[in-house]
Amino acid sequence: MTTPGTFTITARDGAARRASLATAHGVVQTPAFMPVGTQGTVKSLCPRDLREIGTQILLGNTYHLYLRPGDELIARLGGLHRFMAWDGPILTDSGGFQVFSLAGLRRLTPDGVEFASHIDGSRHFFSPEKVVSIQQNLGSDIMMVLDECVPYGADFDYTKKSLALTTAWAQRCREAHPPLHRGQLLFGIVQGGFYPELRAESAAQITSLGFDGHALGGVSVGEPRPEMHAIIHSSVPHLPDNKPRYLMGVGAPQDILAGVAAGIDMFDCVLATRNARNGTLFTSTGKVNVKKAAFRDDDSPLDPACSCYACRTFSRAYLRHLYIAKELLSYRLNTIHNLTFFLSLTKRIREAIETGGFASLKAEMDAIYPPDAPSGE
Amino acid sequence: MTTPGTFTITARDGAARRASLATAHGVVQTPAFMPVGTQGTVKSLCPRDLREIGTQILLGNTYHLYLRPGDELIARLGGLHRFMAWDGPILTDSGGFQVFSLAGLRRLTPDGVEFASHIDGSRHFFSPEKVVSIQQNLGSDIMMVLDECVPYGADFDYTKKSLALTTAWAQRCREAHPPLHRGQLLFGIVQGGFYPELRAESAAQITSLGFDGHALGGVSVGEPRPEMHAIIHSSVPHLPDNKPRYLMGVGAPQDILAGVAAGIDMFDCVLATRNARNGTLFTSTGKVNVKKAAFRDDDSPLDPACSCYACRTFSRAYLRHLYIAKELLSYRLNTIHNLTFFLSLTKRIREAIETGGFASLKAEMDAIYPPDAPSGE
Repeated sequence: MTTPGTFTITARDGAARRASLATAHGVVQTPAFMPVGTQGTVKSLCPRDLREIGTQILLGNTYHLYLRPGDELIARLGGLHRFMAWDGPILTDSGGFQVFSLAGLRRLTPDGVEFASHIDGSRHFFSPEKVVSIQQNLGSDIMMVLDECVPYGADFDYTKKSLALTTAWAQRCREAHPPLHRGQLLFGIVQGGFYPELRAESAAQITSLGFDGHALGGVSVGEPRPEMHAIIHSSVPHLPDNKPRYLMGVGAPQDILAGVAAGIDMFDCVLATRNARNGTLFTSTGKVNVKKAAFRDDDSPLDPACSCYACRTFSRAYLRHLYIAKELLSYRLNTIHNLTFFLSLTKRIREAIETGGFASLKAEMDAIYPPDAPSGE
Repeated sequence: MTTPGTFTITARDGAARRASLATAHGVVQTPAFMPVGTQGTVKSLCPRDLREIGTQILLGNTYHLYLRPGDELIARLGGLHRFMAWDGPILTDSGGFQVFSLAGLRRLTPDGVEFASHIDGSRHFFSPEKVVSIQQNLGSDIMMVLDECVPYGADFDYTKKSLALTTAWAQRCREAHPPLHRGQLLFGIVQGGFYPELRAESAAQITSLGFDGHALGGVSVGEPRPEMHAIIHSSVPHLPDNKPRYLMGVGAPQDILAGVAAGIDMFDCVLATRNARNGTLFTSTGKVNVKKAAFRDDDSPLDPACSCYACRTFSRAYLRHLYIAKELLSYRLNTIHNLTFFLSLTKRIREAIETGGFASLKAEMDAIYPPDAPSGE
């Protein structure tokens, strides 16, 4: 087996890269999209469904798994892979984003962050060492450092001060997890808000700490889409070329294409799965609401260009019926379809980079999913 | 293809029969358990899941499908089989039971029953001819006649009067649907409450009308389990031996075994699927609540004797976690497991009848699922 962390770039097309990243549970072909499995499951899907639709790597949420069922329980049961019966690569976040967006009664100190569980209000403390320990218990292939995710609109001084904290925490995480300990990779996270000079400063600090890869955090936090794309393009050049780059929590099709164009290798987003459960489906001709009246009598597949089980098997009329009747199968079929869309998109991106056709693919997709569309859409 | 309706008894063991029933969409081996697909889906499962767990025939609910998405819509889209992508046999009920248990503002007349939709309060009328027409639109393989399902505790005079109405409606259904029209079978329903002489009277009337099979209705309507088993045993001998016998809406393992012992061939019940979603699981050692504390750290399969995907793949600890976290995958895995239990039970019953071992199987199962347990359990 190739040493975990081995990152091999096999093709380039502009700043876009086609590469592979070795992990203890297999090789990930990049650019890659990671479905989100918050609580040890991608909602409504089995591991074999995930394989069938072409999932290479899953994301698990440290905050959720720590609270329920608990990382120590999962460790006793053999780790997250065995617990959820997924034998492919898993990346876990640090839990920081959920603490700042989901938990209550936060108190930030230089040593970490105290918070109240969104489930039962119980109080907990995440230090850099604690989130490393949790992720070691989970046994994920790629661990993330604890960072402070600065909200959109934070001023320069706050953002600069936060950046220093994030760097100090990153260093403590690195020290708590020796390189390749138990085969688990550790990625650093660059913050700096929407100030390019702070992004550069953060990148200089984070990339000096010897991580196995680097992420951009604090993106897709409510900013207009052009600002998102601008900060991605100005930040990525500060990340080393020879290690994987991960854009956290992004995104829509146009954001993935913008990220790849800037040189990003990895993406995750709840948009695909959450929208699926809300009846918003991504297709080769644009987004569509499965409830739309025109689907009522429509015997054709949702997306004739899609090869997923839902499109191969059922009609628009049936998918509409399931959604309106609030049937559990609706969430499942919609999720299979949306994830297939994003996994197929990244597969097409990989093929396009190999053949020098990325710009053409991006132009084609941008006509369907416009880069200037409001980011809420 | 064998003519739909062909019913061939291949083995007997006491009153229990091992038989096959030909339909336009394939042959059903009996005794058979029919998973319930109320709104055009067995909740949380795809057709291929149903095949994998050994489903032979599904039940669809006329009342629900008539209201949403509508039987005429389904007819325009090629019928229920195509709509839900299930190419095996389907039995539809008449909708009568749901009108009497679920709909509001009922008004019963000799011509039929007026009711208010539980979805939007809109008013509708089911006559015998109407429910035949709806089921013709759905294109089910086995249709059921409209009947009045008498509540438990109804007095003798009311039950006798109702029985006459049910017979009149049955005759009108038979006249509205010529034998084997479009290959669709039509089953009559025997009522008569918990009065053996009324059951005999109803059976004499219904079985004279030339149906393709006969059902016992008005069972499992709140009566104590011994009363249920007693009325089954006293009623079945009044149903012709040479046609399939269907016990509607029953049941638990001990009720299926009691039914088979009396000579019943077909069963349906929401217990398997509804209990699954409530976290109550049927296993080879009895019922178990998936939330139980002892499962918290338990790495073993839910039921080591079960061959379903959930038991082959996941631990009790994981199934408990999914349920407590209210994950969609919980409903799915629990449903796969419970349906597998009932489908495997009927498969074992068929094998036992073939080898003269039914009494022994029944004794074995009755020790685990006692026939004198309260029927709410």
